[in-house]
Amino acid sequence: MPTYRLDIAYDGTEFHGYARQPGVRTVQGEIESALATICPGDFETQVAGRTDAGVHARHQVVSFCGDEIDANQAGRSLRGLLAPEISVTRCIQVDDAFSARFSAKWRRYRYLVLNRPVADPLRRHVTWHISEPLDVDAMAEVAATMVGEHDFASFCRKAEGRSSVRTVLDATWEACSEDILQFDIRATAFCHQMVRSIVAFSTDVGRGRIDAESTAQVLAARDRNHSRGAAPPNGLILWEVCYKDEGLAPNPAIR
Amino acid sequence: MPTYRLDIAYDGTEFHGYARQPGVRTVQGEIESALATICPGDFETQVAGRTDAGVHARHQVVSFCGDEIDANQAGRSLRGLLAPEISVTRCIQVDDAFSARFSAKWRRYRYLVLNRPVADPLRRHVTWHISEPLDVDAMAEVAATMVGEHDFASFCRKAEGRSSVRTVLDATWEACSEDILQFDIRATAFCHQMVRSIVAFSTDVGRGRIDAESTAQVLAARDRNHSRGAAPPNGLILWEVCYKDEGLAPNPAIR
Repeated sequence: MPTYRLDIAYDGTEFHGYARQPGVRTVQGEIESALATICPGDFETQVAGRTDAGVHARHQVVSFCGDEIDANQAGRSLRGLLAPEISVTRCIQVDDAFSARFSAKWRRYRYLVLNRPVADPLRRHVTWHISEPLDVDAMAEVAATMVGEHDFASFCRKAEGRSSVRTVLDATWEACSEDILQFDIRATAFCHQMVRSIVAFSTDVGRGRIDAESTAQVLAARDRNHSRGAAPPNGLILWEVCYKDEGLAPNPAIR
Repeated sequence: MPTYRLDIAYDGTEFHGYARQPGVRTVQGEIESALATICPGDFETQVAGRTDAGVHARHQVVSFCGDEIDANQAGRSLRGLLAPEISVTRCIQVDDAFSARFSAKWRRYRYLVLNRPVADPLRRHVTWHISEPLDVDAMAEVAATMVGEHDFASFCRKAEGRSSVRTVLDATWEACSEDILQFDIRATAFCHQMVRSIVAFSTDVGRGRIDAESTAQVLAARDRNHSRGAAPPNGLILWEVCYKDEGLAPNPAIR
């Protein structure tokens, strides 16, 4: 059966996450309902990153295999069928071996902290507001400590019997405008709540509640009780997914 | 009676505009309900810019006079009482002659157009999405034509018996990032729907449907039938208000 690739973006505010769950509105639920109206037979989808409730995606990838369809026409139809919270950047046929989940080379997440005394109503869905001043240099040390292959058990919600060893390719904290601190992290794959756990720890370092030097010990402890829970979901955006076979044209948008 | 000045910001998405109306949620309604719990007696409010339904404010000013209160404490209380869609940057006591409406020297509005083939779910509340390419140089000509004192009857919803002569201090269209076109306009005061009417006309020029050179004629016609209606409210933000007596400290935020 032919395989198709969908590149999408979404505002996660009103969704109970990506993964389908009974009785609640999810991104997967909306995508699969829309696909059901354009795919004649059965189909199965895979996704690059299973984002949690409230988490957004600037670039998410879904693959599905099913009966033969006109990919360009399917992309246009999906755009008409989906709510404005989800956009479809493109829909193309890909190699049958392609899987949005297993073919991904790396994923990049971005987390935005609004760091100023007063909240901003216009950015409340896409930032975490922290009114106390944060020491971004200390936070950058935390980020640097994450780079490399580590067991991230201290910084994730561990799934029973599954490894929490992951490889972080790069991670940085930067002040990127007057009042925004931006965390960028790129890894081959992520554990559950890994980015938000690192952000929660980083911001506690930034507030001066923990020493940046303790990061390596906390990482080595491989125990979530040593870290600081998870930052709120609304500041988190799945920013970019990259595939092994990126001979694919870079986002030629559907017209 | 003492006079107080409130500097606020809001996300207009879920409001039926600034001005109080029976039976619907408005910014004025929310502000006055919150004030009623902290002001012992009667009070009266004035506002710098009466924004329409769906229009946002990064910086809006409200003044009120009533019984004596502790301004700093009032600011903190208002922040606790108001929904996250409205933020209070500061609350201070001002000269009794101050009026948020009549003392304003000028107002600046900004309008954002997202100009790219595909919609962006994360920016849909604060931009107008136009997928066709726009000629920003032609749009800049339209903006330049607006500068000066003119009768803007062609570019507003005229109120019976009221003048539509206004003075535009500056107006520009600029490509300010990869996919955002930004309209900035500063005037001593604005007519109803003036910014959105100029934006609708500008974007029709940008699409090549009208010649930029016709702008002066349309302006001179002083007849709304010569223009192009109004652009959607969600791209519009009241950006800044400036007062005659800006000896006021620049936004020392309430702690």
